[in-house]
Amino acid sequence: MAITMYDLAGADESRRFSPFCWRTKMALAHKGLEVETIPWRYADKPLLKQLANWERVPVIVDRGRPVADSWAIANYLEDVYPERPSLFGAGPASGRAGAAQLNEVGAAAARFVNSWADAALNGSISRVVLLDILNHLAEGDRAYFRASREARFGMTLEAYAGDRDAHIAALRQVLEPVRLTLAGQPYLGGGAPLYSDYIVFGSLQWARSICPVRLVDPPDPIDAWRNRLLDAFGGLARRAPGYW
Amino acid sequence: MAITMYDLAGADESRRFSPFCWRTKMALAHKGLEVETIPWRYADKPLLKQLANWERVPVIVDRGRPVADSWAIANYLEDVYPERPSLFGAGPASGRAGAAQLNEVGAAAARFVNSWADAALNGSISRVVLLDILNHLAEGDRAYFRASREARFGMTLEAYAGDRDAHIAALRQVLEPVRLTLAGQPYLGGGAPLYSDYIVFGSLQWARSICPVRLVDPPDPIDAWRNRLLDAFGGLARRAPGYW
Repeated sequence: MAITMYDLAGADESRRFSPFCWRTKMALAHKGLEVETIPWRYADKPLLKQLANWERVPVIVDRGRPVADSWAIANYLEDVYPERPSLFGAGPASGRAGAAQLNEVGAAAARFVNSWADAALNGSISRVVLLDILNHLAEGDRAYFRASREARFGMTLEAYAGDRDAHIAALRQVLEPVRLTLAGQPYLGGGAPLYSDYIVFGSLQWARSICPVRLVDPPDPIDAWRNRLLDAFGGLARRAPGYW
Repeated sequence: MAITMYDLAGADESRRFSPFCWRTKMALAHKGLEVETIPWRYADKPLLKQLANWERVPVIVDRGRPVADSWAIANYLEDVYPERPSLFGAGPASGRAGAAQLNEVGAAAARFVNSWADAALNGSISRVVLLDILNHLAEGDRAYFRASREARFGMTLEAYAGDRDAHIAALRQVLEPVRLTLAGQPYLGGGAPLYSDYIVFGSLQWARSICPVRLVDPPDPIDAWRNRLLDAFGGLARRAPGYW
């Protein structure tokens, strides 16, 4: 039975823009696991609360068991499907002890990328795309989104978004560690993509899904890397509605 | 024969503050390799130019061969001393193929941390400690340091350093990915320190060496982690002159 996944959707049900959900969709594809996504809106929080005692997406249901939070899901998939391609770097060719050690080191490293995306990258992108989110949300989600974010930021969405050009310039600087890394290797994971790639890619896919302004351009190596990941898994991410 | 290493020194020859040199000193200690450090000042650039066709420290000389640049040195040590504890995560217990794979994934992950430290962390620290650097430099290095940095920043050192309290607050935010990571695991490398830890530690050791203002405090998990690394290798880093 396919895994099901609750996936944040906009007014257009096919527009799925959560960076955290993209991490999980790419991870499931990396594992070669089939998934059936269920469009979810902020208004559906009670449903998740009842299902998983959790109020945010992604939540997956596998074998009747709900698993919430993208980081926990990645670790769950790695534990439950160890024979499938590793998200953290342990190849199926490794011996069992070696694979466990590899995965500990790989998971520890991915946690830093995850923390960096959560603490630095996503905040920087949000200042660029905040009003785009609002514009793509389902009608019933807009008032909630505005009220909850304005309370969090302590200002109106319009004030927080402010000078978009300045926020885009700041974002390009925030991305510099990714740029430097990709100048030295094809993927954050090394020679092939790992979960760390999907973390950062998920953030850019979030922006691509809703923001008409292109945020990375050639010849930035981030753009070439992003295009390879858009094409990965039969073009899973490229087929999704987006602007660039 | 011990490895020799050129190590940036201040007016007080025992005050060694380069973050890049600290990366290498901790890496050498991790490998259990003896090192004899040679105090180096900016005025000694011609010496390095002649020795290694390079103008910055660290440069090590091992078996008569110079190796320049902290990242290249870490990779050199890993290649040349594979039987010693791995900087990137391959344990001596791993099979040969498993160890190579582990190290590829581990090195790829460390490159991201290295890039983040170079692109985000060190710039943020430099705004806090710039005048402290100047105050600790050898007399003969001060004019060079001021002129080269003012050209790079396009403003006086005093203007660049600006409002120190604001730069300290910004630095504490820049460190958030480290804080989040260490909330979930004891070291950036996982259960035990790896080169990624020494990269970030080197930056804080730079600040500790020259800046009287304490930049991380308990109960920040970064402070506890930093104290464990100050104690590592028989207190190598704690014994070095510093303020906190």
